[in-house]
Amino acid sequence: MALRYALLALLEATPMSGYELTRQFDASAAYVWHAHHPQIYTELRRMEADGLVEAEEAPRGAGATKRHYFITDPGCDELLRWVSEVVEPARERDAAYLKATYFEFGSFDLVRRHLRSHLEHYERMAVRWQLHADQLERRDTLLLRQRLAHAPRHAQAAIVAFKVHVYRGLTERAHTEVRWARQGLELVDRLESEAGLPADETVYHPTPPKRSTT
Amino acid sequence: MALRYALLALLEATPMSGYELTRQFDASAAYVWHAHHPQIYTELRRMEADGLVEAEEAPRGAGATKRHYFITDPGCDELLRWVSEVVEPARERDAAYLKATYFEFGSFDLVRRHLRSHLEHYERMAVRWQLHADQLERRDTLLLRQRLAHAPRHAQAAIVAFKVHVYRGLTERAHTEVRWARQGLELVDRLESEAGLPADETVYHPTPPKRSTT
Repeated sequence: MALRYALLALLEATPMSGYELTRQFDASAAYVWHAHHPQIYTELRRMEADGLVEAEEAPRGAGATKRHYFITDPGCDELLRWVSEVVEPARERDAAYLKATYFEFGSFDLVRRHLRSHLEHYERMAVRWQLHADQLERRDTLLLRQRLAHAPRHAQAAIVAFKVHVYRGLTERAHTEVRWARQGLELVDRLESEAGLPADETVYHPTPPKRSTT
Repeated sequence: MALRYALLALLEATPMSGYELTRQFDASAAYVWHAHHPQIYTELRRMEADGLVEAEEAPRGAGATKRHYFITDPGCDELLRWVSEVVEPARERDAAYLKATYFEFGSFDLVRRHLRSHLEHYERMAVRWQLHADQLERRDTLLLRQRLAHAPRHAQAAIVAFKVHVYRGLTERAHTEVRWARQGLELVDRLESEAGLPADETVYHPTPPKRSTT
C-alpha cells in the first residue's frame, strides 16, 4: 500500500501523465520505496477506480492525446489519513544480515565477496542519497519547485526540511552499512589467519546428524 | 524464501520438534528475519515435501509421540548453495521513511508522535540486539552450544564471530535510527517556532489542483 501514498504525494505536487509519474517517482520516492513501472501503472488504475485520482485527456502533438492524472478531494483525504496513522516500525527482515549470520557455511573468500558487494552498494547509495538531500536543500528539483509553488508560505520550510531530514538519515544509514562491511572484512582477515584454512575452503561443511532410529 | 534458510540453519544445530523450532527461532533468527509461527509450520511442511528435512516420531510422555525434524543431505546442500549466492542488496523499501518524507501533511505534534514511536522502538531493539551479541560472544545460548558441540575446532571461532558481527551491526543500525529520530525532534521544535503554527494544526493541507477543463 505504501506505493499508493507515494503516488498520491507525487500527484499532489502537480498533475502528471502516467509516464511523467514513473519518471518523477524514479527521481524521488523510489530512493525510499523501490517499485517497478508496471506496479506503478497497476496502482494508478486502482487509485482511479477508488476515486483518489481522476484522469483528463490532454492534447499531445498532432491529433494524439495523453491522459493526465489529478489528485481528487478523497485522494487528499487519503493522504492526510495515511500520515495521521502512527504505526509501530516494521520488524526486521534483512536477507543479507540473515545470510551473514551463517557465513561459516562459505569460504573466507566467499565471505569477502559478500561483504565487498554490500560495501560497494552502500557506497553508491550514500552518494546518491547525499546528492538528493543537497538538491532538496537547495530547492533544486522540478517536483519540489512545483510543490512549493502552490504551498502556503508558512509551510514551505517544513516541506523542504522534512524531505532533507529523510535523505540525510538514509545517507547516515548507508555510512553505517559501509562501516559494518569494512569491520567484517577485517574480521575475515583475522579469522583466516587464526584458522589456517585455505581462502577458498568452506569453513564449516554441515552434515546431517546421526539418527537414533530405535 | 529466507525463512526456509533460517529454519535449515537452526536444524543444522540440532534436530527439533516444530514447537522447539518456533521457540529457538524466536530467540535467534527472528531478530534478523521476523516471521509468525504459522508461517514456520507451513514452511516446515514444504521443506519436508522437498526432502530438505525428515521427521521422526519420538516418545513424548505417557504413550504420546512428537515429531522431531532432522536436516538431510539435500538440506545441507541447500544451505551451502544459499550462502554461496552473492546477491545485490535489496533496494530500499522503508514505509516509515516514506511517510517521514511527507510529514508536512500532519501537525507538528503528530510528527513528534511518529518520531517518538521510532525512537522508542529502536532504543528497545538496540538493547535487545546488544544483549544477544553479548550472549553469543560468551557462547551462552543453548543453540550456539549445540552447534559448536559438533563443529570442528578450526571453525568454532568463525561460527561465533560471524553471529556476533551481525548483532553488533544491528545494534549500530538501531543507534543510527535513534540519532535520526532525535535530530527529527529537534527539527520539529525549530520549524514550529519559525512557522508560528499551533502544535496540533496540519502544517500543509493538500487540495486538488484547479482543473483546466476546456
